[in-house]
Amino acid sequence: MHYKKLFTELENECKNLENNGRIASYISELGNVDPNKFGIHLTTVDNKNYGLGDSDEKFSIQSIAKVMSLALAFQIDENNLWDRVGVEPSGTAFNSMIQLEYEKGIPRNPFINAGALLICDILVSRLKNPEQDFVDFFRKVSGNPGIEYCPKLAESEKKTGFRNAALINLMKSYGNIKNDINKVLDFYFKLCSIEMSCKELSQAFLFFAANGTHPVTKVSVLDISKTKRINAIMQLCGFYDEAGEFAFKVGLPGKSGVGGGIIAIHPGKYSIAVWSPKLNKKGNSYRGMKILEFLTSRTESSIF
Amino acid sequence: MHYKKLFTELENECKNLENNGRIASYISELGNVDPNKFGIHLTTVDNKNYGLGDSDEKFSIQSIAKVMSLALAFQIDENNLWDRVGVEPSGTAFNSMIQLEYEKGIPRNPFINAGALLICDILVSRLKNPEQDFVDFFRKVSGNPGIEYCPKLAESEKKTGFRNAALINLMKSYGNIKNDINKVLDFYFKLCSIEMSCKELSQAFLFFAANGTHPVTKVSVLDISKTKRINAIMQLCGFYDEAGEFAFKVGLPGKSGVGGGIIAIHPGKYSIAVWSPKLNKKGNSYRGMKILEFLTSRTESSIF
Amino acid sequence: MHYKKLFTELENECKNLENNGRIASYISELGNVDPNKFGIHLTTVDNKNYGLGDSDEKFSIQSIAKVMSLALAFQIDENNLWDRVGVEPSGTAFNSMIQLEYEKGIPRNPFINAGALLICDILVSRLKNPEQDFVDFFRKVSGNPGIEYCPKLAESEKKTGFRNAALINLMKSYGNIKNDINKVLDFYFKLCSIEMSCKELSQAFLFFAANGTHPVTKVSVLDISKTKRINAIMQLCGFYDEAGEFAFKVGLPGKSGVGGGIIAIHPGKYSIAVWSPKLNKKGNSYRGMKILEFLTSRTESSIF
Amino acid sequence: MHYKKLFTELENECKNLENNGRIASYISELGNVDPNKFGIHLTTVDNKNYGLGDSDEKFSIQSIAKVMSLALAFQIDENNLWDRVGVEPSGTAFNSMIQLEYEKGIPRNPFINAGALLICDILVSRLKNPEQDFVDFFRKVSGNPGIEYCPKLAESEKKTGFRNAALINLMKSYGNIKNDINKVLDFYFKLCSIEMSCKELSQAFLFFAANGTHPVTKVSVLDISKTKRINAIMQLCGFYDEAGEFAFKVGLPGKSGVGGGIIAIHPGKYSIAVWSPKLNKKGNSYRGMKILEFLTSRTESSIF
Repeated sequence: MHYKKLFTELENECKNLENNGRIASYISELGNVDPNKFGIHLTTVDNKNYGLGDSDEKFSIQSIAKVMSLALAFQIDENNLWDRVGVEPSGTAFNSMIQLEYEKGIPRNPFINAGALLICDILVSRLKNPEQDFVDFFRKVSGNPGIEYCPKLAESEKKTGFRNAALINLMKSYGNIKNDINKVLDFYFKLCSIEMSCKELSQAFLFFAANGTHPVTKVSVLDISKTKRINAIMQLCGFYDEAGEFAFKVGLPGKSGVGGGIIAIHPGKYSIAVWSPKLNKKGNSYRGMKILEFLTSRTESSIF
Repeated sequence: MHYKKLFTELENECKNLENNGRIASYISELGNVDPNKFGIHLTTVDNKNYGLGDSDEKFSIQSIAKVMSLALAFQIDENNLWDRVGVEPSGTAFNSMIQLEYEKGIPRNPFINAGALLICDILVSRLKNPEQDFVDFFRKVSGNPGIEYCPKLAESEKKTGFRNAALINLMKSYGNIKNDINKVLDFYFKLCSIEMSCKELSQAFLFFAANGTHPVTKVSVLDISKTKRINAIMQLCGFYDEAGEFAFKVGLPGKSGVGGGIIAIHPGKYSIAVWSPKLNKKGNSYRGMKILEFLTSRTESSIF
Repeated sequence: MHYKKLFTELENECKNLENNGRIASYISELGNVDPNKFGIHLTTVDNKNYGLGDSDEKFSIQSIAKVMSLALAFQIDENNLWDRVGVEPSGTAFNSMIQLEYEKGIPRNPFINAGALLICDILVSRLKNPEQDFVDFFRKVSGNPGIEYCPKLAESEKKTGFRNAALINLMKSYGNIKNDINKVLDFYFKLCSIEMSCKELSQAFLFFAANGTHPVTKVSVLDISKTKRINAIMQLCGFYDEAGEFAFKVGLPGKSGVGGGIIAIHPGKYSIAVWSPKLNKKGNSYRGMKILEFLTSRTESSIF
Repeated sequence: MHYKKLFTELENECKNLENNGRIASYISELGNVDPNKFGIHLTTVDNKNYGLGDSDEKFSIQSIAKVMSLALAFQIDENNLWDRVGVEPSGTAFNSMIQLEYEKGIPRNPFINAGALLICDILVSRLKNPEQDFVDFFRKVSGNPGIEYCPKLAESEKKTGFRNAALINLMKSYGNIKNDINKVLDFYFKLCSIEMSCKELSQAFLFFAANGTHPVTKVSVLDISKTKRINAIMQLCGFYDEAGEFAFKVGLPGKSGVGGGIIAIHPGKYSIAVWSPKLNKKGNSYRGMKILEFLTSRTESSIF
């Protein structure tokens, strides 16, 4: 199917979708967004671009940034990384703490909060100026100098981030955090505060669909094997306690954020970003999940 | 790469692999197998066949049979199935019971023991003669009248199957088991006792690589969407607490059994079965995992 | 304070107590009882008796019987008993299964269901005719030939007792159950079906207040040390997840049953039984807890 | 039995006791103590004193101080206290985090670390100068101006106290901590650093054996009911995951600390402190438990 025709169908489908769920509102900066925003942007590996709705509007990408921090950590620290964090799905959220305890401070995977904090700890150890170096990496890969942190949001999250402080202290008690806790937390909250549009996201993540080298910027981020491995982690761990559901219904590797964004990758074909702020009960974008399910059902094309 | 050349490389690689791990020995019937057995068989969607080692020797496929029982249940009971069993990975084995309790008797997925028992309960409800009907289905799909239960093994497993009895009683206490517990357990142990060779397995499972219709027997088991969905469940839940590791290193949907067998699917390309009885610490075939990792690394070809 | 005066005050207090909570109704036999029943009976170690309300009416003592089965098991099997069951409180009910798994089939204490099943297994091993021998023991100790099982109730409980079947199967999978599961379950459900009045209960349990020898029947059940030890277990484990609350507010060793009965012991002074069928959220008699709290507050006399 | 004769027997028994277990060594200040130290001191409610061994030597009382902080909090904040902390035993240590999560930041009891931190938070809210006011309270009650914090030890504990930081952050995420986390942690570590001898401890805690008013200083700390309630909490929660064992074998309310000290109370009779630095596997003084068991067995006198 031609993507152009597909996007016409997507546009119709969007109109029919109920906008259920709730906006994440644990901090006011996230809660103030217009709940009716809805954007989609798809970029093919040969750099054809298809957008829809609010696809040029920036939003808080939140946990989606954790895929990029993992990519950078995997690029620079391939050897010890997987001794300090696993690659297994995490089961229900209710036992996140007990799993971390049971497994002696080794987080199950790099996308749960504990794991993303661990990746931040690695980057704080390995980068001179973690915050600047990370955003520079993100900009260079995507060829987009407009990628920015939102310091005000980062500040707000830090003020209420007691659960993350609990997780990092627990890991520190097992010796699995090497740096000062506040330094790592600051970096983590900065990371999650990045704002991008669907178009920017889709274009930035294109190298995951292209064996690790960005087709446009030509930046070689990861080799084939590492790229496949991060895709695999996205597939198994990218949607909190709904990873199975996403694999079952959509069938693409991806990652969601509580800002209502989702990035998904069809290896060899395209990357796609969607944004709709209202979240379902598992914390993933309600309409985002629905429209991606429609897309892969309609095209009869998923990785499975 | 041509599969013929690939199999020459696989043959060399097999010689180099250490044969670590331990045979499952909780019942003597499983423990008596020769630990040095090693077979591989790959069948392409256009029915080219490549075998190696002990690929024609029958072994106990154990939990691999659970993929076929799920396929049959999904074929005949598509509506209510997913209200009674989830599609999410299960996290660490240590909390299997608590998850089942926490989720009020709804197993996390159809491949953990609780979920497979649940699928058996559905089949016992829907089939006239569950044991006969199931093996007939298996034979018809694969075009292989030689598929048989091993009643002696089933009997042995039943005698020591107290943990499975605990699981099914717990589900029954939540009303999620409809039939007599002993009837369901009997069917479950029969299911797990099936014996097949790598060649037979690979050929029988070929329809999962071919959108649900078997390329040789032409039996249409499932539609495209359902086939993709079972593949997705295999990817996320097929290897106990090592599903992430298998996705990370091999990158194919698959299912393992404690008899040392593994089936893996490359959608659109092939199905492959391997057998080596010694298991790693997570309960999956030690050499089986290694050789499949070699295969997808060497071909630079996984679904990711 | 004289007990006579105390009972006058108790009588007034009873009138003021709200009758909150719910009757256990998971089986109809338990649910059919009149929710307004309320009885109290106190027996001093010098055999003075004080009764109130429906203290002569028989009700289903349920788990209270587990104190007597423990006493008998401790009498005849003092050596290995505590290798197979612990003496620690069990924490929240929600993790009963995981604790049993984590502790490899050793129940935390003899009063949670798993532990009581374990004690039944010991008695099945050691008694010729467990059901007859146990009730004979109970009758002889108390000098009361009228203690009887209720076979109809036992039968009903067995039909819905899947959670108990799950627990015993899990213990059996760890090798901590020696006898046939159905035999032990049958005995367990019989045990819980015993019917007695407050007066009968209070008199039967008097030896726990008298260093182990019954002051009236003169039967020596346990020595001082063993008696104190069972009292200690009652104090720490006798009220499900409300043992702390009972110690905090009442301050006596005791045991409750879902039939709405409670037995409590003041070592050296008296035993007391209360009965009011409606249960609070933790499964203990609502008015029973209240009136015992009133009693020990009013007398300023608890073991603490 | 006369206490004098009893202490002669205790002295003989002490010589026979093996000195098994290990000193707590997670911080060097605790690990440097002589492992052969052994002291006992008993004070009767009529102020007769009996000492043995190193009963005049100061050691780190650690968690024993939590009984005094609870007493002070219960004295000044009787109303809301029990909405914010429970009175139930905590089950196995392995699930301390999950219980705190499951119960939404309400610690099970005031003696587990989370609960003691919660009590510190209450005192930080209610006292002008928490550290000074608390030690003044302790001194006044006991009539002992020599009770002091050990600032060096407090500092060391803070440096490695990541698990406590995890717990307090988790409670804060549920809104159950009102003050600045560092302020509460500082107070907590100070509290645990207090050093006292067996004699000082035994004399200071005497009011728990005397209905809440200290027989010597005449300070009225708590009324009868509150005193009994703290004794009950000591009985059910004072020995980590060995509370049942202590009730079973010793049969007195008490509290242990990782410094190897134990305080125990016989209401109406005496308070007793023991000290022997080596801890058993559950973290309680090995010889301390043994000698208290000997004492109550020999006197055939426990609260049960």
